[in-house]
Amino acid sequence: MENLNLNKHISGQFNAELEHIRTQVMAMGGLVEQQLTDAISAMHSQDEELAKRVVAGDAKVNAMEVAIDEACVRIIAKRQPTASDLRLVISIIKTISELERIGDGADKICRTALEKYSQQHLQMLVSLESLGRHTIQMLHDVLDAFARMDLDEAIRIYREDKKVDQEYEGIVRQLMTYMMEDPRTIPSVLTALFCARSIERIGDRCQNICEYIFYFVKGQDFRHVGGDALETLLTGKNGTPPATTPTE
Amino acid sequence: MENLNLNKHISGQFNAELEHIRTQVMAMGGLVEQQLTDAISAMHSQDEELAKRVVAGDAKVNAMEVAIDEACVRIIAKRQPTASDLRLVISIIKTISELERIGDGADKICRTALEKYSQQHLQMLVSLESLGRHTIQMLHDVLDAFARMDLDEAIRIYREDKKVDQEYEGIVRQLMTYMMEDPRTIPSVLTALFCARSIERIGDRCQNICEYIFYFVKGQDFRHVGGDALETLLTGKNGTPPATTPTE
Repeated sequence: MENLNLNKHISGQFNAELEHIRTQVMAMGGLVEQQLTDAISAMHSQDEELAKRVVAGDAKVNAMEVAIDEACVRIIAKRQPTASDLRLVISIIKTISELERIGDGADKICRTALEKYSQQHLQMLVSLESLGRHTIQMLHDVLDAFARMDLDEAIRIYREDKKVDQEYEGIVRQLMTYMMEDPRTIPSVLTALFCARSIERIGDRCQNICEYIFYFVKGQDFRHVGGDALETLLTGKNGTPPATTPTE
Repeated sequence: MENLNLNKHISGQFNAELEHIRTQVMAMGGLVEQQLTDAISAMHSQDEELAKRVVAGDAKVNAMEVAIDEACVRIIAKRQPTASDLRLVISIIKTISELERIGDGADKICRTALEKYSQQHLQMLVSLESLGRHTIQMLHDVLDAFARMDLDEAIRIYREDKKVDQEYEGIVRQLMTYMMEDPRTIPSVLTALFCARSIERIGDRCQNICEYIFYFVKGQDFRHVGGDALETLLTGKNGTPPATTPTE
């Protein structure tokens, strides 16, 4: 993991503490990525055992969020960070909240693994698996971008969510036809539908993490600003260079 | 609005700044409550105009979140709060994020207002309206509890969410029967189902705000701790008195 600009601190101890928190965030991210990967596998292969392991593993994700949150509050109280250090801590507090909710999403996806699908309906899990792989990749990439505070990557991933949304809309339409063709399948198809929605929400959460990267790097809140301002962010038309240049 | 323990500050300016942020949070809460109330009305009375006003109003909620967030980061950087002041600021940062998402929920509920339901299916909106009223009350109460940092109220509201969940489960079952009876209604019933889910999620977000009240008052993170620890929190069996006593 790169050290960003942390080396500038006079206090080596402060430096070490910030770095320790970042390491914890990356560890939590790695765990959540594994949980999501396992959840998608469990759903697709109808693996009840794996699903149960994911559900049990969510407690560890939750515990990591609480521990990192405490460490962040402690570092604010003790070191009184300002400027980019404070933005880093605030970005971390918000990012781990998204990671925790992605963990909850993995837990919800696992419910599909316990559903008994007919051979015909197992077919629909193929498109769910494809949507799942898409969000796993997004999560993987956004964690990588967060580790390096890579603005360009964050912008790319932010845009990627539109594709996830389109894929999800297609799945909803497909699932509706299953229900219409055979109303007896409605309960189990609804389970798949809620699963699809949980997966789609993970794309949104990755997009939120991108916004925290924007905030850290540019020192400005880009939430809710819409496409044009984002375009400006991407092409640098607003004339303000990144507040921090990531060290590669 | 009560002043909590803010009067203890040597700096009257700091005091005023913190109080100003709290006032902004309550204003944001009031707006979100109005948005939710209007969304439920628009859904129930199929009022397209009102729905459009709610959708347009969401931008104001978003702008308030960004403004309060900035004020919080500024006060951390400038005043370097510790102990209960820092917990208050952290609780506010997290609470406004929940409020913003409740605002998004109101926006989503409004989509139902634009759906064309048959006379028979308008019936199902009655149960959605009842669920909606339930969450409006929860939101109203939790904002009130937040203003007074009232631990007992927060615990009561936290428990209330179970009833919302049960009501939601009942609605899902009811909506499934509609779909099974007449598969042609599936698309519009699904819209109602997603609406019900958005309403149910608002109960979860109110529950999250309760957890931030616990955190502020008790100085300890009660997330993910489960029913027993909450029971202990309620009855004070853990022997630690509240870190701060709200001034009524």
